[in-house]
Amino acid sequence: MGSNGQKEDHASELAGLFSLRKLPDAQSDYASARYVVLGVPFDNTSSYRRGSRFAPDAIRNAYWNLESFEFHYGVNIPDAMIYDAGNLFESEDVEEVIDSVETAVRYVSADGKVPILLGGEHSITVGALRNFRDCGMIIVDAHSDFRDSYMGSRFNHACVTRRALELLGPGRIVSVGTRSVSREEFESEEWKDVRFITADEVRERGIRDVIGEIRSMGFRRVYFSIDMDGIDPAYAPGVGTPEPFGLTDRDVRELIGAFAGITVAFDIVEITPVYDNGNTSVLAAKFIQEFIGQRERKASKKP
Amino acid sequence: MGSNGQKEDHASELAGLFSLRKLPDAQSDYASARYVVLGVPFDNTSSYRRGSRFAPDAIRNAYWNLESFEFHYGVNIPDAMIYDAGNLFESEDVEEVIDSVETAVRYVSADGKVPILLGGEHSITVGALRNFRDCGMIIVDAHSDFRDSYMGSRFNHACVTRRALELLGPGRIVSVGTRSVSREEFESEEWKDVRFITADEVRERGIRDVIGEIRSMGFRRVYFSIDMDGIDPAYAPGVGTPEPFGLTDRDVRELIGAFAGITVAFDIVEITPVYDNGNTSVLAAKFIQEFIGQRERKASKKP
Amino acid sequence: MGSNGQKEDHASELAGLFSLRKLPDAQSDYASARYVVLGVPFDNTSSYRRGSRFAPDAIRNAYWNLESFEFHYGVNIPDAMIYDAGNLFESEDVEEVIDSVETAVRYVSADGKVPILLGGEHSITVGALRNFRDCGMIIVDAHSDFRDSYMGSRFNHACVTRRALELLGPGRIVSVGTRSVSREEFESEEWKDVRFITADEVRERGIRDVIGEIRSMGFRRVYFSIDMDGIDPAYAPGVGTPEPFGLTDRDVRELIGAFAGITVAFDIVEITPVYDNGNTSVLAAKFIQEFIGQRERKASKKP
Amino acid sequence: MGSNGQKEDHASELAGLFSLRKLPDAQSDYASARYVVLGVPFDNTSSYRRGSRFAPDAIRNAYWNLESFEFHYGVNIPDAMIYDAGNLFESEDVEEVIDSVETAVRYVSADGKVPILLGGEHSITVGALRNFRDCGMIIVDAHSDFRDSYMGSRFNHACVTRRALELLGPGRIVSVGTRSVSREEFESEEWKDVRFITADEVRERGIRDVIGEIRSMGFRRVYFSIDMDGIDPAYAPGVGTPEPFGLTDRDVRELIGAFAGITVAFDIVEITPVYDNGNTSVLAAKFIQEFIGQRERKASKKP
Amino acid sequence: MGSNGQKEDHASELAGLFSLRKLPDAQSDYASARYVVLGVPFDNTSSYRRGSRFAPDAIRNAYWNLESFEFHYGVNIPDAMIYDAGNLFESEDVEEVIDSVETAVRYVSADGKVPILLGGEHSITVGALRNFRDCGMIIVDAHSDFRDSYMGSRFNHACVTRRALELLGPGRIVSVGTRSVSREEFESEEWKDVRFITADEVRERGIRDVIGEIRSMGFRRVYFSIDMDGIDPAYAPGVGTPEPFGLTDRDVRELIGAFAGITVAFDIVEITPVYDNGNTSVLAAKFIQEFIGQRERKASKKP
Amino acid sequence: MGSNGQKEDHASELAGLFSLRKLPDAQSDYASARYVVLGVPFDNTSSYRRGSRFAPDAIRNAYWNLESFEFHYGVNIPDAMIYDAGNLFESEDVEEVIDSVETAVRYVSADGKVPILLGGEHSITVGALRNFRDCGMIIVDAHSDFRDSYMGSRFNHACVTRRALELLGPGRIVSVGTRSVSREEFESEEWKDVRFITADEVRERGIRDVIGEIRSMGFRRVYFSIDMDGIDPAYAPGVGTPEPFGLTDRDVRELIGAFAGITVAFDIVEITPVYDNGNTSVLAAKFIQEFIGQRERKASKKP
Ligand SMILES: [Mn+2]
Ligand SMILES: [Mn+2]
Ligand SMILES: [Mn+2]
Ligand SMILES: [Mn+2]
Ligand SMILES: [Mn+2]
Ligand SMILES: [Mn+2]
Ligand SMILES: [Mn+2]
Ligand SMILES: [Mn+2]
Ligand SMILES: [Mn+2]
Ligand SMILES: [Mn+2]
Ligand SMILES: [Mn+2]
Ligand SMILES: [Mn+2]
Repeated sequence: MGSNGQKEDHASELAGLFSLRKLPDAQSDYASARYVVLGVPFDNTSSYRRGSRFAPDAIRNAYWNLESFEFHYGVNIPDAMIYDAGNLFESEDVEEVIDSVETAVRYVSADGKVPILLGGEHSITVGALRNFRDCGMIIVDAHSDFRDSYMGSRFNHACVTRRALELLGPGRIVSVGTRSVSREEFESEEWKDVRFITADEVRERGIRDVIGEIRSMGFRRVYFSIDMDGIDPAYAPGVGTPEPFGLTDRDVRELIGAFAGITVAFDIVEITPVYDNGNTSVLAAKFIQEFIGQRERKASKKP
Repeated sequence: MGSNGQKEDHASELAGLFSLRKLPDAQSDYASARYVVLGVPFDNTSSYRRGSRFAPDAIRNAYWNLESFEFHYGVNIPDAMIYDAGNLFESEDVEEVIDSVETAVRYVSADGKVPILLGGEHSITVGALRNFRDCGMIIVDAHSDFRDSYMGSRFNHACVTRRALELLGPGRIVSVGTRSVSREEFESEEWKDVRFITADEVRERGIRDVIGEIRSMGFRRVYFSIDMDGIDPAYAPGVGTPEPFGLTDRDVRELIGAFAGITVAFDIVEITPVYDNGNTSVLAAKFIQEFIGQRERKASKKP
Repeated sequence: MGSNGQKEDHASELAGLFSLRKLPDAQSDYASARYVVLGVPFDNTSSYRRGSRFAPDAIRNAYWNLESFEFHYGVNIPDAMIYDAGNLFESEDVEEVIDSVETAVRYVSADGKVPILLGGEHSITVGALRNFRDCGMIIVDAHSDFRDSYMGSRFNHACVTRRALELLGPGRIVSVGTRSVSREEFESEEWKDVRFITADEVRERGIRDVIGEIRSMGFRRVYFSIDMDGIDPAYAPGVGTPEPFGLTDRDVRELIGAFAGITVAFDIVEITPVYDNGNTSVLAAKFIQEFIGQRERKASKKP
Repeated sequence: MGSNGQKEDHASELAGLFSLRKLPDAQSDYASARYVVLGVPFDNTSSYRRGSRFAPDAIRNAYWNLESFEFHYGVNIPDAMIYDAGNLFESEDVEEVIDSVETAVRYVSADGKVPILLGGEHSITVGALRNFRDCGMIIVDAHSDFRDSYMGSRFNHACVTRRALELLGPGRIVSVGTRSVSREEFESEEWKDVRFITADEVRERGIRDVIGEIRSMGFRRVYFSIDMDGIDPAYAPGVGTPEPFGLTDRDVRELIGAFAGITVAFDIVEITPVYDNGNTSVLAAKFIQEFIGQRERKASKKP
Repeated sequence: MGSNGQKEDHASELAGLFSLRKLPDAQSDYASARYVVLGVPFDNTSSYRRGSRFAPDAIRNAYWNLESFEFHYGVNIPDAMIYDAGNLFESEDVEEVIDSVETAVRYVSADGKVPILLGGEHSITVGALRNFRDCGMIIVDAHSDFRDSYMGSRFNHACVTRRALELLGPGRIVSVGTRSVSREEFESEEWKDVRFITADEVRERGIRDVIGEIRSMGFRRVYFSIDMDGIDPAYAPGVGTPEPFGLTDRDVRELIGAFAGITVAFDIVEITPVYDNGNTSVLAAKFIQEFIGQRERKASKKP
Repeated sequence: MGSNGQKEDHASELAGLFSLRKLPDAQSDYASARYVVLGVPFDNTSSYRRGSRFAPDAIRNAYWNLESFEFHYGVNIPDAMIYDAGNLFESEDVEEVIDSVETAVRYVSADGKVPILLGGEHSITVGALRNFRDCGMIIVDAHSDFRDSYMGSRFNHACVTRRALELLGPGRIVSVGTRSVSREEFESEEWKDVRFITADEVRERGIRDVIGEIRSMGFRRVYFSIDMDGIDPAYAPGVGTPEPFGLTDRDVRELIGAFAGITVAFDIVEITPVYDNGNTSVLAAKFIQEFIGQRERKASKKP
């Protein structure tokens, strides 16, 4: 039967042979999905090495490389039921994009599914977060992103944590991997309202100790946002603003795993494929698997 | 209403905001389409600079760059009704891939639509061509692809013209841009059964004269196959086996336009994005527009 | 004597050994200069392959490669007295950037010097042009840039020719190399007010015939703007939106030379170095030499 | 005297000035050699990022960079007497290639020399291993390579460990760095017959503890195979299927050194130079030096 | 007022809008500066992967990426008063370049400022060091650079430490990160006169222990020279001769910080941008910030 | 029988399976050869984009891509009997390298064979040419290379034509493609002693007319030297100093063919692979085939 109910065409036979490029493990339809992938190819407030708009498809391609099965803890990722909605239609208006992300994430959440956003730049996080005002937030980032406004816009990717603070309030945000902060940010009155854990502190204490501290904050639901520049450029070279002395790939993996069970929304942002050797996209892909795999494992353990 | 008829979800609202990456002008559904894009990410018989399996998505991305409107002759490409079926599920077995292509193209043709294949390597042409045994064939290629068998396989990409000859018979194939031929091919008995027009001959005579010669062969329906290495590497650097002294981009554009009206299937093959600076993919994208635009223009002129 | 008049330091001795990177032939101070180079590292309204903000320094570096002497017609470029002011301080606000360009070009013009702008994206041309409302304008571009507004802004780089038309009025603008036009642009009432000469028309008629036509328009002073995507991607691969079937490098060289004598301001825009193999930057550098060399030659011929 | 005994030509004088590119430390002739380098430019069963066929020459070039003397333990590598046989003549037939490798390695072993294979893809290991059925085997790899068959072939590079198990039998193979395993492999009955040590386990225990465990297995002779994707992509980005969270370069160096004294054959596979920044090839080159240097040091210590 | 005192031009207004590319934090004039940046684009004695001549401007560009404020210890880098003199005029004669560097550094030192050299290759260090014959020297390098002469020159970049020994005498030089040494160097009589600390030794003992050892040598003033190949290629891929198993980025940061207070001259050499992904330049930029920031912090602590 | 006459080893069996990388069509031994390929990996006097030392092997690799048979005129290239001697042992001393080249070419010529040099930079031509003082010389080059001395050396690659003039005398050298000349060169007294034919002149007159002019000079034996920057950067991007507005690939092909019959030595220089997309190396490879093929064709026509 044809795609529009016409008996005479071969639409469904063709659909058995061909498919548009999506996240390889996203083999579910929307109705059955527990996770929904949303690409947001937007990078307009970025200034230095632009191009994160190409990241959603780069991550999908890199993911091809990975096994669907996570043998470390025995989860078959496609069994988690993932739907890939594709990419947001393009716009260069940051507020319009943020509003669209807000709307889409509201739909997905309302339907009882976990949104996984693929940026695009960090500013898209603000739109998604508007749907989770009662959550805690864990950010991985080299930058504090704590300017009140930058280059004339309060929605610039350099202002994400500040906007998040307005949405969630003090004591609800942890940003891990910090190592680039302007004086204006550092000396702002609100600096103390976010827990910035520097990359150096993570190196000194170990990520497990840091995880313990975050656990002690008592979040019940978490919004998890990964700006890939939080990771050291040795592991994640393909970012807009690489900053030396960062987190290791394993630090971030442990952090994801520790809170996967209570994470209700997840994003990965700020990859710029034109500056990448492929490592950054495949690491992002692996973080998605890690998030889903660990979350499913924890879900299955619940009695 | 939801994707599976469930009232309660937001599948269709989401579909209004997001979409998987397809050829930008492919805005038709299958039933209404007059052209169907089929990606075939296969490159297993290639030997030198591999990677044409990444070409279908590279062409889709590069196409983003182009206007949908062809102002030279006033055709709005999306009005031509294009459906993008995505990419063939992957296999490394050349015969299986060729069979799948044959099947898919048969469906599309049976449904009265024009297939546009995005390779992948040249060997996929053989599968498509099996559905057009009564047609003439125009090939753009630096190589004669006339070996009976290569590296142990009769379906190697170095044997395409030979297989085509078996399908169509003598006097029905023109290959334009030839400049790399082995002695074995050149001295084969069947050499005379295909009209090989060298790139040098095109340069000397001009492409319009060559078009005249092909017209005089009296084809009523044409299978049109573009191996991108037929074009000079200055214009198309991202190919597996670049060969100097080639056709110009305009030569190929004129050839496409001249026969678009009688072309019943069209393919573009042998792009290797990892070796490309973007020019090759965008040229391929433009050739697709040119094919559809010229074909539509001619269709609309018919009284 | 020191830089600030202190006798005791070695500032001037150091200045005899070291210098900041500028256009190599720019060996004049401002007061003596007849040409002033202004870099404008702005690319914020660009959407596809961003990065023209890195072009001014890329052109300066590529220029290193060239001889200072133009032996074809015997001009020593540094004798033309060139001053390189460096790059505009950065801003992401397109209107602010355009205003700054307007101001800077006004200063330079008021001081009786010819401004040479190195973009950055095409939108910067609008600021410069505001100082030349009584001139004719010659544009090299693949795109008509004739949208009234794009992505929410009337100053987007896709609207340059439209803004220019408002500044100069009908019959005063020629755009050469056109091959990408949207329906909305093509069908606009103002389309006829600009003379768009397609790349195909240049190929058919030859650039000298086209030059004759432009000469017949009777411009006495010309603003000359080169969007590098007007040139074929084979010669200029490093641009944001490469478009096949373009002008040759020599077409543009002849066009520059033909009008250099009456050109009062000159810009080169839309190079994206991260996508370049170096050819695009060195071609831009050579165009600058060609502009200055031909203009000087003509000046010296005046009796 | 000439190359063929003709007195009158200058073949030998020329050979004193010029030489074909080989591994720089390979200054021995075959008869005197204790180590024989064999390049195998084959990558036909690879599927994702192809190009390991270019690796043997890339490793030879990168090796140029290294000192011939290993000052850490005082071995002059050329004194180890190395002969570089060059590259296997090319074929796309995996079984033919494996057979040729088997034959060549048999010759080298029969002549009392240690073969060092430069892949090419991992499947070539199977051919070499057929000559060492009584040995233990140490593999460095991100993947278990434990499929019985893949993409229609039992000799696919995804099946190497499975084929090795058939050759050597249970309890004789250790694979270090494992972190990508399919369900089918993990649940196979034979999984327990190979000791897979995950990269995470190495990180937790330390490589020296892992070496202790392997020592306790009591191998007397070892075949050592390095799939470069076993190392973390931060250190070895130029591989076909990069997998995050890998071994460090030093882990592998220690492993090589610990067993060099009993290693009778050595291979390095799966480098894809087109995706490399040079680090992967130079690391491979250094591993070769490390293998030879440590082996010589141990040999010289024997009383 | 104009640049040359002419009232009538707009030179100073233009200087308020535009500036040549310099190190972004270098906002001081020469007279007020405490630090002077000197670029030396020379790479003529390098042999393998050339191109360090492009490094000074690459570092300046990468530095753009960094915040001016070092929040870890509260130093605003521009407050340290930095002047960027630009690049040395080019020459291919190594002795002439070394002499020019000697002269320039003498000027800067005589004016009571700290020179920061941006190479170019390592040989330039010799010129600078001639002004600091009573200092200790700390070198970061993979290579011992201890040949007496190489490729016919005693000023080759492979001879830097040997020349330094002649200038400073035994017991005054520490080279950290050593892992590539020729037999000739290792067996030279002077080997013991320099303290070579291998990268392996740093890994075993920890950098803090190594710092303790260097402190115990009692240097009162230090010349600090960073050959970027001392750092592991995972962190610094863009160097002429990458050598595996190196120092970490943090090792070098700690070393810089520990001796910043007594460092009187500083250089960073041997970056080859054409082989870089950007990480190496940005790490170099960060080392400069670290040097200045730590030095200022220590200065401010002095009672 | 073994390589050294030992019966017991498998050296010759191994040689039947493996071979070091050489020019693929070089299947002759030295004694039987009519053409001898000599690689000269030297680039030490180059200054801008260095790296021609990697070109000889890059050309060998690119050549792999080509058919051995030239079907345009029916010559099987290996039948021409080619021997590849490999690369000259490395030195950074330009005079030593030139002397070695002189010596090697003398051997080859004395043995009655035609030398084909693969640079390396242009300066190596001087060494070869010393053996052909009674010949005419045809140079393809963007630059006049006519400085008496540059950067302190008379053997700099910028002085090649000047040195050639000293060897051959006035009226014996034609340089085709000239478009970059310094004032000092242009105004030198000797300028008239070489026939410089600019690229513009070739474009205006056509290459066949130029060939006619050169023929009329009556050379009986020719040294043919191709600096790849003579060709337009669109066709040959991978050169040290790309110069726009160059010769086409076909211009140079025709020039080679026209004089192949009387050419007694041939070189191709100035390719820098690190800046190449592969087109430059494959074009060089094709020029070699063209030279040999046309020379053989002409030889065979002699009655
Ligand atoms: Mn960030
Ligand atoms: Mn961020
Ligand atoms: Mn083909
Ligand atoms: Mn082909
Ligand atoms: Mn434009
Ligand atoms: Mn444009
Ligand atoms: Mn493997
Ligand atoms: Mn593997
Ligand atoms: Mn050094
Ligand atoms: Mn070093
Ligand atoms: Mn030259
Ligand atoms: Mn040249």
